[in-house]
Amino acid sequence: MRFKAEIDVMPLDALLDPQGKAVTNSMKSIGLPEIDGVRIGRHIRLFVEADSKDVAAQKVEEACKKLLANQIMESYSFVVEEA
Amino acid sequence: MRFKAEIDVMPLDALLDPQGKAVTNSMKSIGLPEIDGVRIGRHIRLFVEADSKDVAAQKVEEACKKLLANQIMESYSFVVEEA
Repeated sequence: MRFKAEIDVMPLDALLDPQGKAVTNSMKSIGLPEIDGVRIGRHIRLFVEADSKDVAAQKVEEACKKLLANQIMESYSFVVEEA
Repeated sequence: MRFKAEIDVMPLDALLDPQGKAVTNSMKSIGLPEIDGVRIGRHIRLFVEADSKDVAAQKVEEACKKLLANQIMESYSFVVEEA
């Protein structure tokens, strides 16, 4: 079976996010001062061939740990569903 | 009231995603050949001050159009909830 995973990789809350900070500042310039606290990470979509949703989730977890997220600086979360 | 928005900005399906392609290839090298079709975009989390969820969603929509997404190359989607 084929599964789709939607993964979010975000900078840890304890770390500065200069890109997010710059965007927060820009919001004021474009007339959206109501917006703040912008943090920017990555969104990753991928597909997995697996016998079950549990196995697919294990594969995605492994991909996050080995390749997609740097756990020193980033946290990740994901959702797996049948594609 | 304060609302939190979770925004995904992804490269349009019609466009190549070289970064995603490179990651797809790397999956094979790290022993995860079950994974393919990787596409990589941005995940943005931000906060909005607004009187209602509808107004907050309007502000987020405006931020996406004006600043966060390049609609020639990217599509965006978001969820707004009370913070």
